[in-house]
Amino acid sequence: MVKVGIVGGTGYTGVELLRLLANHPQARVDVITSRSEEGIQVADMFPNLRGHYDLAFTVPDVERLATCDVVFFATPHGVAMSMAPELVERGVRIIDLGADFRIKDIELWEKWYNLEHTCPDLVQKAVYGLPELNRDAIREGQLIGCAGCYPTAVQLGYQPLLANGLVDHRRLIADCKSGVTGAGRGANVGTLLAEASESIKAYGVPGHRHLPEIKQGLSGMAGRPVGLTFAPHLMPMIRGIHATLYSVLKDPVGPDLQTLFEEFYRDEPFVDVMPAGAHPETRSVKGSNMCRISVHQPQGEDTVVVLSAIDNLVKGASGQAVQVMNIMFDLPETTGLEQVALMP
Amino acid sequence: MVKVGIVGGTGYTGVELLRLLANHPQARVDVITSRSEEGIQVADMFPNLRGHYDLAFTVPDVERLATCDVVFFATPHGVAMSMAPELVERGVRIIDLGADFRIKDIELWEKWYNLEHTCPDLVQKAVYGLPELNRDAIREGQLIGCAGCYPTAVQLGYQPLLANGLVDHRRLIADCKSGVTGAGRGANVGTLLAEASESIKAYGVPGHRHLPEIKQGLSGMAGRPVGLTFAPHLMPMIRGIHATLYSVLKDPVGPDLQTLFEEFYRDEPFVDVMPAGAHPETRSVKGSNMCRISVHQPQGEDTVVVLSAIDNLVKGASGQAVQVMNIMFDLPETTGLEQVALMP
Amino acid sequence: MVKVGIVGGTGYTGVELLRLLANHPQARVDVITSRSEEGIQVADMFPNLRGHYDLAFTVPDVERLATCDVVFFATPHGVAMSMAPELVERGVRIIDLGADFRIKDIELWEKWYNLEHTCPDLVQKAVYGLPELNRDAIREGQLIGCAGCYPTAVQLGYQPLLANGLVDHRRLIADCKSGVTGAGRGANVGTLLAEASESIKAYGVPGHRHLPEIKQGLSGMAGRPVGLTFAPHLMPMIRGIHATLYSVLKDPVGPDLQTLFEEFYRDEPFVDVMPAGAHPETRSVKGSNMCRISVHQPQGEDTVVVLSAIDNLVKGASGQAVQVMNIMFDLPETTGLEQVALMP
Amino acid sequence: MVKVGIVGGTGYTGVELLRLLANHPQARVDVITSRSEEGIQVADMFPNLRGHYDLAFTVPDVERLATCDVVFFATPHGVAMSMAPELVERGVRIIDLGADFRIKDIELWEKWYNLEHTCPDLVQKAVYGLPELNRDAIREGQLIGCAGCYPTAVQLGYQPLLANGLVDHRRLIADCKSGVTGAGRGANVGTLLAEASESIKAYGVPGHRHLPEIKQGLSGMAGRPVGLTFAPHLMPMIRGIHATLYSVLKDPVGPDLQTLFEEFYRDEPFVDVMPAGAHPETRSVKGSNMCRISVHQPQGEDTVVVLSAIDNLVKGASGQAVQVMNIMFDLPETTGLEQVALMP
Repeated sequence: MVKVGIVGGTGYTGVELLRLLANHPQARVDVITSRSEEGIQVADMFPNLRGHYDLAFTVPDVERLATCDVVFFATPHGVAMSMAPELVERGVRIIDLGADFRIKDIELWEKWYNLEHTCPDLVQKAVYGLPELNRDAIREGQLIGCAGCYPTAVQLGYQPLLANGLVDHRRLIADCKSGVTGAGRGANVGTLLAEASESIKAYGVPGHRHLPEIKQGLSGMAGRPVGLTFAPHLMPMIRGIHATLYSVLKDPVGPDLQTLFEEFYRDEPFVDVMPAGAHPETRSVKGSNMCRISVHQPQGEDTVVVLSAIDNLVKGASGQAVQVMNIMFDLPETTGLEQVALMP
Repeated sequence: MVKVGIVGGTGYTGVELLRLLANHPQARVDVITSRSEEGIQVADMFPNLRGHYDLAFTVPDVERLATCDVVFFATPHGVAMSMAPELVERGVRIIDLGADFRIKDIELWEKWYNLEHTCPDLVQKAVYGLPELNRDAIREGQLIGCAGCYPTAVQLGYQPLLANGLVDHRRLIADCKSGVTGAGRGANVGTLLAEASESIKAYGVPGHRHLPEIKQGLSGMAGRPVGLTFAPHLMPMIRGIHATLYSVLKDPVGPDLQTLFEEFYRDEPFVDVMPAGAHPETRSVKGSNMCRISVHQPQGEDTVVVLSAIDNLVKGASGQAVQVMNIMFDLPETTGLEQVALMP
Repeated sequence: MVKVGIVGGTGYTGVELLRLLANHPQARVDVITSRSEEGIQVADMFPNLRGHYDLAFTVPDVERLATCDVVFFATPHGVAMSMAPELVERGVRIIDLGADFRIKDIELWEKWYNLEHTCPDLVQKAVYGLPELNRDAIREGQLIGCAGCYPTAVQLGYQPLLANGLVDHRRLIADCKSGVTGAGRGANVGTLLAEASESIKAYGVPGHRHLPEIKQGLSGMAGRPVGLTFAPHLMPMIRGIHATLYSVLKDPVGPDLQTLFEEFYRDEPFVDVMPAGAHPETRSVKGSNMCRISVHQPQGEDTVVVLSAIDNLVKGASGQAVQVMNIMFDLPETTGLEQVALMP
Repeated sequence: MVKVGIVGGTGYTGVELLRLLANHPQARVDVITSRSEEGIQVADMFPNLRGHYDLAFTVPDVERLATCDVVFFATPHGVAMSMAPELVERGVRIIDLGADFRIKDIELWEKWYNLEHTCPDLVQKAVYGLPELNRDAIREGQLIGCAGCYPTAVQLGYQPLLANGLVDHRRLIADCKSGVTGAGRGANVGTLLAEASESIKAYGVPGHRHLPEIKQGLSGMAGRPVGLTFAPHLMPMIRGIHATLYSVLKDPVGPDLQTLFEEFYRDEPFVDVMPAGAHPETRSVKGSNMCRISVHQPQGEDTVVVLSAIDNLVKGASGQAVQVMNIMFDLPETTGLEQVALMP
């Protein structure tokens, strides 16, 4: 039984970890921290957990967290890096759902996150947490910087094309659409139902923090720096990310893309290449850890369009973190992650 | 392993049965029927099931269904009564999610459903499927007419008051709010997103088919015919029923209602009496089989207000049917029904 | 041309006043105040107003406001009472959309609003702003305390019954459903899209600030203190209130209620009694100043159910305020309020 | 006073025409047809129109329609072409909101619409109805084929770039998002609230009927055939289209795009170029005839991203049709179209 600690349990990725771990047969949440909610039962804050947990929030405390086998950070950037060095030293394994350990280029990180990084050495030792890209390194890793939500959807969609050198790596366009939970549980006028429902908008077109993370990942796949335009959009829904990924085929009559994608992901339990002609709906992954992908070559011309759908809170965050934990602790990778998406 | 057949698998209660049974450790769906979708894989119709089922729809066939231990009817009224007699004769157990076997007064049933009942004898032998009311009879039953969605929310809310004779049974008011899946998966202008979102309305105030079912149940609890006003409302959401139940206390300074409710439902795994002062949200039961209830006595006066929330497709339909199956087959009642509600 | 000032223009009732007054042929907004947004153009804050206004927020200033013919307070309770005395003294007419001048019983007001009232004398001179109840007094009034959103829907629904003495005034039940704009534009976790959509809940069942206002109004209609249970519910939609109003007929075979309602509201431009059997949808009044009502007597028994639908931001707030202004300034009552509801 | 006829008044563009024309001071709807709803009052079908119209649906009849000055076809493709020749002959002016007269290449039209065109001659005489592209021709036109919803958003966004020859015309990508009213008012499982809310998906990526129309328009602007990838997406909202338009600048340090766009649309009453850095929300045009546009050049690189937002039922259909009518009848172009968008 893996003893789990969670730092920052009051946000959406925190409660989603609790949901997923409630029925995980090989893991048990021992510690959950929140400075503001100290002493409150998790089930009093999140009534969906009533009957599933007898666990109260405690103030973050390294001593206490060090009794865990693994600590998840479900926190905004900047928190994990402040506690990670001490926990790593004590041999605790760390899975950061935030951004502190994703980007290898410290200067780039500091520019986009507007913060000085306090443990750049650890960044270099950290493993990027996207199992479909990096499974072996995750297995051995002590500190994992889990892939972000947009980066997961985009990288899984582009990987077969870039890894096979099929498209022009300089002209990638990722038009992404996300539900509002991507913005977190903070009180915010912009994500009030009265503001965000019955409307859509782009945001961060001039620049978004996930851009350098995605470029780092795609450049790794391509073996050289890619050119990427990334346009995120806010959707009037709770959960879900849909990435529409455009690229230009070097050879429009090259290998059959459907077959290529199917073979590329044949053994992946959480990537579902849909039949030719399909369009994945985000609801088909709602509450599940699946990424559903389809690939199109409209009118047989040289533009390829990949559609990639995930639940941003599951495969884009907490489910992926549990998948990473399963890998790290040599559990079957799908343990606790077999939920069927809630549809309708 | 319970061998399950499902008649009518293309509606919302059908796909929800498939979702719940996909991870049920003691049941396996062997047969699923649909005349219109014969030969189609269930996962091609409902992509959330991809990877969980290798099962195709077949034309309804009594021979084939008779090989099952239990057959669920996830069909509109009128279908179950046409096939039940033959299946009953062959010893198959039946769980009808529709309305054919709920109402004992055949004449009343025929008036509200505008149809002649073809097996009135079976109605008398059928057991009403609401475990919190009727658990022992269900255990022995061969044919169960599961409680409807509104009737479940209303009866669970009123039961402690009526069974204890605390309120005026002649003046019950059930103001109920339901998500659109209550109207089924049929193509219908009124439940298009463009018609039903960003709006609410009452419907069926002059009379709704669930009225006689609810009155039958409440009258049973009260030991005499109750007077009930039932006003259903359509809500701009997919899942969920919220019943707001008004009644008049015979004695405003009688027993403490909070304690009474907690004790009444102490041993029920799927009824959660919330703390005093709470207001259950439907999302706190989304995708789960729980009914959450709170009880209020505003300003200490003689009106009691009970709030009762369920997921109409789970505790109001398919989850309840699985709970009934567990009881019938001597499985632990919560088997396969431990999902945590999806929140947010 | 009526010169208009608006205090507190950054909330939802403020921007709705701006929307309605943009095309009002006899009124012009001269001053709009907001301490936090001083100097900002209203159209920069609310892009729907681009091209309609060249007007910036200014700090509230009595001198400046005193140049207006009428000042609207689109503010939380407590603000209007702090500025009203001085403006009244200078002869400015005031329309308060907040709660400061609605309740005549100062002690009661102070209890529910948990605040000392600073100008109780003015309260006694103030006129309650619900034209269908109080039109003549409004015409002569200098200071109007506009009816709240729930109170408008409830009072218009009950008025024909209570004014005619047809129902038991001791047993009124108002089950009300409101869109989230009723909670205002403040940053608030509870009304985030991720929290409030795909869910419904009751709130304030033990007691809500609109209860004393509604009781005061209904008691006036009935000529004696009424007994009222008021249960508000939060709906996953932006705009709209639907009140479902229950009462007990003294005589179940009394006057035809449909005819009675139609005649009662025959000359009202903003109350639409729908045909017998109808159920008003809130979307049928979205963006319009109309209140649509239907009346039902289910199964001919002694309970009457009135359904009343308004747009909480229009007839429940800013539209009503404009209607009140039209009356005060002897303009045709419908001036600037002829918008057709946006449907779908 | 322009006498108006509407063929096909029971769909969303029909009721939206009625909403807009209800307060149009220079036009009056004399005839509205619907075969299925003959004799029904429009206000009985669409309760938002109660009090605004005393008009019943009639069976389509050329004699009757010929008494009108202008006839709008708010019909699926195929209807207008069956009645247009006779009306044109009688001198009636026609505004077709459908697709029959938009595409000059008959063969192409027949391929995409899978129907033989019955009056190809009229197509050649027809004028394309997008005033910002084609105002003078519209003024003189007798038969107008109004621009479709996606085509309007896309063409208005690309026009300044293509007309000035600034971008590579071979690599245009239009990622478009539409509310469900774009799919019409037909009963359809796919646009049920239970299917389409809390989810997004692409559709028609292999090919969509608006593709040839958009390509025709963009090619006209560019002066040569363009290459376009068009990916429409279904959004969980009622109204609104957001087009995200990608193209490659020939010269990344060319003219300032913000200034270029502002000047290009300086005199257009219904195109609003937003300030630099802005992201238009579809709700900022909800119910209004405005198209709001912003232009971005992320990180100063060579990709330009134009964001274009309209209400698909107004500027994308019925509002545009009224704008066209105003032009044809020498009325001020904004007559009846000054509604402020409903926000929130």
